[in-house]
Amino acid sequence: MKAPNAIDRLVSLLSKLPGVGKKSASRMAYHILDGGNGYARNLAESLASLHELILRCGVCGGFTETDPCSVCADPGRDHSLICVVERAQDLRIIEESREFNGVFHVLGGLIAPLEGVGPGDLAIGKLISRIQERATSEGQNVREIILALNPTLEGDTTSLYLQKVLSDFPVEVTRLASGLPVGGDLEYTDRLTLSRSFRGRVKM
Amino acid sequence: MKAPNAIDRLVSLLSKLPGVGKKSASRMAYHILDGGNGYARNLAESLASLHELILRCGVCGGFTETDPCSVCADPGRDHSLICVVERAQDLRIIEESREFNGVFHVLGGLIAPLEGVGPGDLAIGKLISRIQERATSEGQNVREIILALNPTLEGDTTSLYLQKVLSDFPVEVTRLASGLPVGGDLEYTDRLTLSRSFRGRVKM
Repeated sequence: MKAPNAIDRLVSLLSKLPGVGKKSASRMAYHILDGGNGYARNLAESLASLHELILRCGVCGGFTETDPCSVCADPGRDHSLICVVERAQDLRIIEESREFNGVFHVLGGLIAPLEGVGPGDLAIGKLISRIQERATSEGQNVREIILALNPTLEGDTTSLYLQKVLSDFPVEVTRLASGLPVGGDLEYTDRLTLSRSFRGRVKM
Repeated sequence: MKAPNAIDRLVSLLSKLPGVGKKSASRMAYHILDGGNGYARNLAESLASLHELILRCGVCGGFTETDPCSVCADPGRDHSLICVVERAQDLRIIEESREFNGVFHVLGGLIAPLEGVGPGDLAIGKLISRIQERATSEGQNVREIILALNPTLEGDTTSLYLQKVLSDFPVEVTRLASGLPVGGDLEYTDRLTLSRSFRGRVKM
């Protein structure tokens, strides 16, 4: 016996989700079947309306239901401080840490020559326009650009490129500290991270 | 900034799936957002139609798009051999092993007094009717009932109960062998499994 087609189809769609293999997809599908029609319908509606409800903010590029998004429209945020992230979902992680009261800029990727992604594919021109617009129109200049890209080869390449491009403008360019994770163990720390945390050591 | 409501709603629905926490649900939601409208729509349609397309087989209780299911309707299967499983999804696992050419019977659960599940909540009466019907109407009696329940406390309790109930009928009742998993290691085998594999040892 083959499994019924409707189940097979659902399993193959679910197994395209990140971190979901054939086996978990199958468990999910049967869970949804067991769970009655209500849950399946709710999930179906949520998925069907998702792309209608979610826009990209015209200013920062983040996901939003209103344009501009609630961060870009908030006068209580520090608009002279722009945090540059790779993807729209990175905003949520930073917002949840409650560490940052500035605004964001989503690049939409990282420079990766091997995958054919160059600076022209990213929202770098738009970042420069934002800096220029604020300089001419509003008086409250952009003061600092914080690069919050992943500490990977692509992230570092992109950070260096942005630093170079932004050196033409009167803004400070910083990037997030890289080093030992809190609760981590020296013994299990790789050489590169250790070397970075030495170079970035701070006075106590 | 809160995440947009439409994303929050999807995340909370996805995190109800088995093995999916808040964090993976969030990753899935953003993956779906990034993936364009096509995937989200396909998944939505598959979910919306799922409960309309999938029935329970009137004979064995398995999931099917036709009633009776393809196994119960197949004259090439051995209808004198009934494999009893806990849940409809267990059929798929056994079918994929290609080890079994009989038919199935889904109990719909296991006896679990602490959770208030008694024999009356399971499809035991229906199993007995199947045995009786074949005995009177068709000539090809049910010859053997294979209990393929999980080797857990509830599974064993249910197996023992079924063995007792079925002793009134001229059928052989067997259960799947329990023992060392293939590729397993004696060192990492628990005492109970080891004890079972001793008791169930076979002549070489």
